[in-house]
Amino acid sequence: MAERPIAVTMGDPAGIGPEVVAKAVAKVGSRGLVVVGDANLLARTAKKLGLKKASVDVHHVDAKESDGGVGFVALAHELATAGFVSAIVTAPMRKLAPWTKGGAAPGHTELLSEWTHTDPTATLMMVSERLKISLVTNHLPLSAVPKAVTREAVVLAGQRTHRALVDWFGVAAPRIVVLGLNPHAGEGGKIGSEERLVIAPAVAALRKSGVDAVGPLPADSAVFLAAEGRWDAVVAMYHDQGLIPAKLAGFGGAVNVSLGLPYVRTSVDHGTAYDIAGKGIADPASLLAALKLARRLVRG
Amino acid sequence: MAERPIAVTMGDPAGIGPEVVAKAVAKVGSRGLVVVGDANLLARTAKKLGLKKASVDVHHVDAKESDGGVGFVALAHELATAGFVSAIVTAPMRKLAPWTKGGAAPGHTELLSEWTHTDPTATLMMVSERLKISLVTNHLPLSAVPKAVTREAVVLAGQRTHRALVDWFGVAAPRIVVLGLNPHAGEGGKIGSEERLVIAPAVAALRKSGVDAVGPLPADSAVFLAAEGRWDAVVAMYHDQGLIPAKLAGFGGAVNVSLGLPYVRTSVDHGTAYDIAGKGIADPASLLAALKLARRLVRG
Repeated sequence: MAERPIAVTMGDPAGIGPEVVAKAVAKVGSRGLVVVGDANLLARTAKKLGLKKASVDVHHVDAKESDGGVGFVALAHELATAGFVSAIVTAPMRKLAPWTKGGAAPGHTELLSEWTHTDPTATLMMVSERLKISLVTNHLPLSAVPKAVTREAVVLAGQRTHRALVDWFGVAAPRIVVLGLNPHAGEGGKIGSEERLVIAPAVAALRKSGVDAVGPLPADSAVFLAAEGRWDAVVAMYHDQGLIPAKLAGFGGAVNVSLGLPYVRTSVDHGTAYDIAGKGIADPASLLAALKLARRLVRG
Repeated sequence: MAERPIAVTMGDPAGIGPEVVAKAVAKVGSRGLVVVGDANLLARTAKKLGLKKASVDVHHVDAKESDGGVGFVALAHELATAGFVSAIVTAPMRKLAPWTKGGAAPGHTELLSEWTHTDPTATLMMVSERLKISLVTNHLPLSAVPKAVTREAVVLAGQRTHRALVDWFGVAAPRIVVLGLNPHAGEGGKIGSEERLVIAPAVAALRKSGVDAVGPLPADSAVFLAAEGRWDAVVAMYHDQGLIPAKLAGFGGAVNVSLGLPYVRTSVDHGTAYDIAGKGIADPASLLAALKLARRLVRG
């Protein structure tokens, strides 16, 4: 039986999604992938960019009815759930309005978690050659982060990270470092107490469950050492603590992977970039990296 | 008249400070520098490391009476204030207990600010070849950061960064990027309101005062672009947001510079490393980089 294809969603039709998808298809060909999006928009975009007509299979949803690209993701989810595709690779959408006051602004990860009944929400891991970083919390206001960093949340992120390293990345005995929440990981309680009260017990629980985790360690030095190869992955407490080094170490080629969903899902590491949409200058490198990684993870 | 020397403090006698100072002196020689610390400890350390006897001038304070190295810093401050030295380069001490409940755990920067009546406290800038990053807040628990990011604090950090770039780094027309506090710089208010209420008005005030600042921008992409040369410096809102990329981009060679003090002060970017103290394996690279940068800044 032929390998099942990978679904690539088109992203927000008003962003750079259609452009990077058209460029990626032109670059890697249509073999082993299907696009989920507006077929006419894809054809028009390719033509405008001077790319030859793509022969790629498109699962069509009209852009106008896609709710800013959410409809493409919904169909890709259906295809993955039904087993027609082996993985989903997503182009950027804008974040939606938060579902609760002070809550997270949902994006792909939250939508796919809801649809697949993944609870708690899937864990975001950023992957580049030098660095793999998972997040305990994601699209939360910084003021809401300390309360959201619970023992359970840290343990869950650590376990999902361990599983991903074993199942997808082929690391037999993964070593994981867990970052502190506060500067200097709290400097022995002088700069915050969450390390002692929450994160250290979580690391102990992880170790008890068979995960080779260390920490909490000061984030600035631990991330540097992780990028040098000291550990296989980093568990960061919040968005910028993980995403800043992920993008810096990835030189624009970092890929977002969802941990905990029932299928493989990777994503570009950039946003909709409305300011350059339609100008023909968007770089498909991140989408190509996401596609390449999805293929690798599907094969295990 | 000969150029005034630079004072190098020995740091916490129980940490790796004495070792990296001894190694640095052995490497660059005694010309243009004086050590402030325990002369006997320095001699013993050099001997233990198999370094030849340093002929460097030492302003002696007995290690036992140095209060973990604070006494060395106090004397260096006196020398700088009296004009006997042109700059202070500091080896690591541990942080002191916070002066107020929920307040910052003070270190060199806070001590020197108090002694020089620099109010608000001097701004920490991390300097490496690819990246210069200043902090609006520093050794605060993460939960205390949002309230401490005030319009005045952002403006002050921006102005001090501008002045340092002009006066010390010779950048005629510095371009500065100011980071958001929340993920995606708040994503238009969906992930926090501090960008709209505090940081954007601060950036407007900076521009009005003649500082070429942009922002608030999403931290993860802005830091990446800054490291690629898009701006001359970054203003980060809190410790890990700035220190993580500073160390990653600096490959262990980033230097801590204090902005706002009446004299030049640079520092290593690492801690006391008690775990390896006395083993002879501490790397003096960061201290050497701090010394080199201090010389450059003194010359303007």
